[in-house]
Amino acid sequence: MSMEEGKQYAYRYPRPALTVDCIVFGLDDEDILKVLLIQRQLPPYKDQWALPGGFVQMDESLEEAARRELQEETGLQDVFLEQLYTFGEPGRDPRDRIVSVAYYALINLTEYNLQAATDARDAAWFPINQLPPLAFDHPQIFERAIARLQGKVRYEPIGFELLPTKFTLTQIQKLYETILGHELDKRNFRKKLLKMDLLIPLDETQQGVAHRAARLYQFDAQKYQQHKKQGFNFEL
Amino acid sequence: MSMEEGKQYAYRYPRPALTVDCIVFGLDDEDILKVLLIQRQLPPYKDQWALPGGFVQMDESLEEAARRELQEETGLQDVFLEQLYTFGEPGRDPRDRIVSVAYYALINLTEYNLQAATDARDAAWFPINQLPPLAFDHPQIFERAIARLQGKVRYEPIGFELLPTKFTLTQIQKLYETILGHELDKRNFRKKLLKMDLLIPLDETQQGVAHRAARLYQFDAQKYQQHKKQGFNFEL
Repeated sequence: MSMEEGKQYAYRYPRPALTVDCIVFGLDDEDILKVLLIQRQLPPYKDQWALPGGFVQMDESLEEAARRELQEETGLQDVFLEQLYTFGEPGRDPRDRIVSVAYYALINLTEYNLQAATDARDAAWFPINQLPPLAFDHPQIFERAIARLQGKVRYEPIGFELLPTKFTLTQIQKLYETILGHELDKRNFRKKLLKMDLLIPLDETQQGVAHRAARLYQFDAQKYQQHKKQGFNFEL
Repeated sequence: MSMEEGKQYAYRYPRPALTVDCIVFGLDDEDILKVLLIQRQLPPYKDQWALPGGFVQMDESLEEAARRELQEETGLQDVFLEQLYTFGEPGRDPRDRIVSVAYYALINLTEYNLQAATDARDAAWFPINQLPPLAFDHPQIFERAIARLQGKVRYEPIGFELLPTKFTLTQIQKLYETILGHELDKRNFRKKLLKMDLLIPLDETQQGVAHRAARLYQFDAQKYQQHKKQGFNFEL
């Protein structure tokens, strides 16, 4: 069989359509973890909320497709983005056999140009525990993304992407509690967190708070990269 | 726009071909970790070794496709199988734009019917550190699979699928060392392993060994499932 025949062989198969879907987590200025959703303009699931996404073009990689769709639909760019999982149950889209490669992104909404993302028609941020009904199998994509975050906080300082540059220990604890879905013992959490030696205490405190202003910290970017490479355990 | 028009909309896009590839890890009776490869009969990469895999059919899920291909090409069935990652760089297959969803499987070769798997024409097991040159981007798939195993041994007792039902502490340490690519301190490893409280010591020792026969252990399946659900840390 020649190369040309090999090519024919590849062409012979009927093909599912291929899309990307993006689940964007953003931590807002009240430390609430939110997900970015788009209200669908077209059937199926017209007017329902869904993850931003769309068809993969023939000349772009999957990650390029995810970044392009994210920018087109929400204005977001240059975000932390990783592949999550590929969803391909035959009945997941009523139009056709459509397989979707899901990506998840993490951003901080205080520092990001949130306006850009919500300028897009019908885009909105929802707290992760107050999501509207989602189109397609997007509830499953959401569940898997949360599970990934829960796994990741155990061995990566994932807050790095979600928190603002300067943050308090209370903020990082709240973020971990939101992701894990349960409260953590404050003293124990802080002990473990500081033991990781990833945080730089700053000579600054919070501004404009009613209660006693807490010390601000930032991540040690160099140690973070090193830890990320080697992997580590953060037993919670 | 009607549902019918929505359908047209979905159809309008050119489609990449969609395949699955399977990376099967097997631990043999000498505790060597191996990968199952197929020698290609067709161009491109004719006669080169590659991961087993093939095109996704329109009426099957991605995991069903992976299991079907695995059985057709290697005779293996009912194996532990999980989705690894989806590879979709535009140039990864010279025939066409082909996106591949990779799965990885874990089996023990002593207990499995190894014969079945190698009956398939041109299928063979290679030690993970003695792989032949691989076709396509399969070296990348292999690298990602190893990285996944390295991540997983930290928070899942992954040996459960790879080890025989009864095994020695030396066997499990050797498996971890193979996956991690470096030696582990014996005393420290055993201490941590036993602390996980996942192993049941048996009143049996190895048979037919020249050296002093070591005690055999097995996994506590119930505790394993519990740990797997909750996640845990195994700091190595």
